[in-house]
Amino acid sequence: MPADSGPVHVTALTLRPATRADLPAVLALLADEARVVDPATLVVDQVYEQAFAAIDVDPRNEILVLVEGVDDQGDGGRVVGCLQVTYIPGLGKGGAERALIEAVRVRADRRGGGLGQILMERTIERARTRGCALVQLTSNKRREDAHRFYGRLGFARSHDGFKLAL
Amino acid sequence: MPADSGPVHVTALTLRPATRADLPAVLALLADEARVVDPATLVVDQVYEQAFAAIDVDPRNEILVLVEGVDDQGDGGRVVGCLQVTYIPGLGKGGAERALIEAVRVRADRRGGGLGQILMERTIERARTRGCALVQLTSNKRREDAHRFYGRLGFARSHDGFKLAL
Repeated sequence: MPADSGPVHVTALTLRPATRADLPAVLALLADEARVVDPATLVVDQVYEQAFAAIDVDPRNEILVLVEGVDDQGDGGRVVGCLQVTYIPGLGKGGAERALIEAVRVRADRRGGGLGQILMERTIERARTRGCALVQLTSNKRREDAHRFYGRLGFARSHDGFKLAL
Repeated sequence: MPADSGPVHVTALTLRPATRADLPAVLALLADEARVVDPATLVVDQVYEQAFAAIDVDPRNEILVLVEGVDDQGDGGRVVGCLQVTYIPGLGKGGAERALIEAVRVRADRRGGGLGQILMERTIERARTRGCALVQLTSNKRREDAHRFYGRLGFARSHDGFKLAL
């Protein structure tokens, strides 16, 4: 679209906290490993309703969605990426929060086009604006492609991540 | 002390949430890398007062202290270890929380005696009782001794940990 084509129907990417209406799209992204899951095919179990509500009311947790196609006609757009951020208060770093990112997802049919970078960069900027001293995340050791991606974003691969299932 | 010596002055280890009165001892442990820092020498900056208060009122964050020498005479005991736990709500794992552990410390003059193991085991049990599905943490790649310690506790070193200072 030419830059001078006027304001209508300008496709945009918006990063914003998820609302309850986004929950099927978010769960579809979480379920979508290799191919797109249609949110319309999902039944939202009550346990996920409750988990979403718990995140939604917590001032130190949020699910952010990257929405494509929001335009000035009021089109609601389509969720093409998501992640969860937990803002952790602490006694180090002058009492500043750190931002922990979990569950980064980009729609299977939209990977490789830079959406992940936009999702991460805007999330990092949001954490910076909030006053966080650090952004941290872990990534499975098998995900070498993801590790290069986080390296390009400026992250240092300085730690090992340990998990214990209960 | 003989096991039949009666109930008085039995030295014990207690894991409990830190109170404001523990803050100097906790800050001393955080400052103590190679040698013991005397809590009495610390001036508690207002920024740490505020950070502690933020953690204290947050139902999903707590600083736990391992206290030695609590006895039935009401002796307040001495803080020999601490860590911070963040309970993270999420949309995975059936909506269960995961427990993130940060800032694990044992007093420099008490390391190697099993206190770290007790600190971690009781924290894991606390997370299990709360209903968490997972306990997770990261450890600097240079800390091979710590990695063996977490391995013995049952943790899988499955992830790489990435940090970005803001």
